[in-house]
Amino acid sequence: MGIEIERKFLVKDDRWRSLGVGILYCQGYISSEKGRTVRVRIIGNQGYLTIKGPVSSRVRSEFEYVIPVEDAKEMLETLCDRPFIEKKRHKISLGDLIWEVDEFFGDNQGLILAEVELKDPNQMIEIPDWIAEEVSHDARYFNSNLAKNPYSQWEENKT
Amino acid sequence: MGIEIERKFLVKDDRWRSLGVGILYCQGYISSEKGRTVRVRIIGNQGYLTIKGPVSSRVRSEFEYVIPVEDAKEMLETLCDRPFIEKKRHKISLGDLIWEVDEFFGDNQGLILAEVELKDPNQMIEIPDWIAEEVSHDARYFNSNLAKNPYSQWEENKT
Repeated sequence: MGIEIERKFLVKDDRWRSLGVGILYCQGYISSEKGRTVRVRIIGNQGYLTIKGPVSSRVRSEFEYVIPVEDAKEMLETLCDRPFIEKKRHKISLGDLIWEVDEFFGDNQGLILAEVELKDPNQMIEIPDWIAEEVSHDARYFNSNLAKNPYSQWEENKT
Repeated sequence: MGIEIERKFLVKDDRWRSLGVGILYCQGYISSEKGRTVRVRIIGNQGYLTIKGPVSSRVRSEFEYVIPVEDAKEMLETLCDRPFIEKKRHKISLGDLIWEVDEFFGDNQGLILAEVELKDPNQMIEIPDWIAEEVSHDARYFNSNLAKNPYSQWEENKT
């Protein structure tokens, strides 16, 4: 079992782009109820099955297993809700932290989120100057919710 | 990915008891919605995580992964609905079939179900004479439903 402790932010501009390369992620949810999520993810040619518990004070239990990519493809096709979450994840190492900047596509096109994983929920961190407001506690930005109510459908983003 | 094709029956009497030994199973459900179930199971000192799709004409997709028993215990404790399913599974080999007789305990005490896994949904099988009526299509007998509405709470079983 792992523990996930993370903070999540919007970004101000494109300065993060020069700091890391992006890798494509495709993921879907078999279930996301009562704060528990069951996620199927494909990164490159590897599948992952991940169970997460409810979020409590930035901390969340996480159980992740590597699975055959064929299983992941079949579960995405036949068992996961639509739309899938499609994003390019850019890993950026700054000091002793790794920032993950997720650039979303598909139904969440236009959204960019920066996450940083912490060792301790109260760890002090240096915030890069391309980071904008924190959205850690805004449930709309949970990936499992972006799969149900994607960014392009938010009232303020409708054209 | 696997395909599960099975038929499920009640039993008439105890004749099956002399035909196989029983092993304890404890399992719980992280999710069981829209016909998809996410099950955590412990058999002996091994954990399993199993995803199943909706049942269609006796056939069901099934993805099963071996996981550390510590993960399984922690998921049962912290993420699974109560009550758990506790049962002793007796594997009985008859001809080229393997019958699994599940003797339930806890909130499902009193229930005994015999399952047989088939290679083909229309496979002809020989039914042992200790088998009673078929309940393959009675959703109350799905293990995921026995975890929500256990046998001891069924109207006809209340004393």
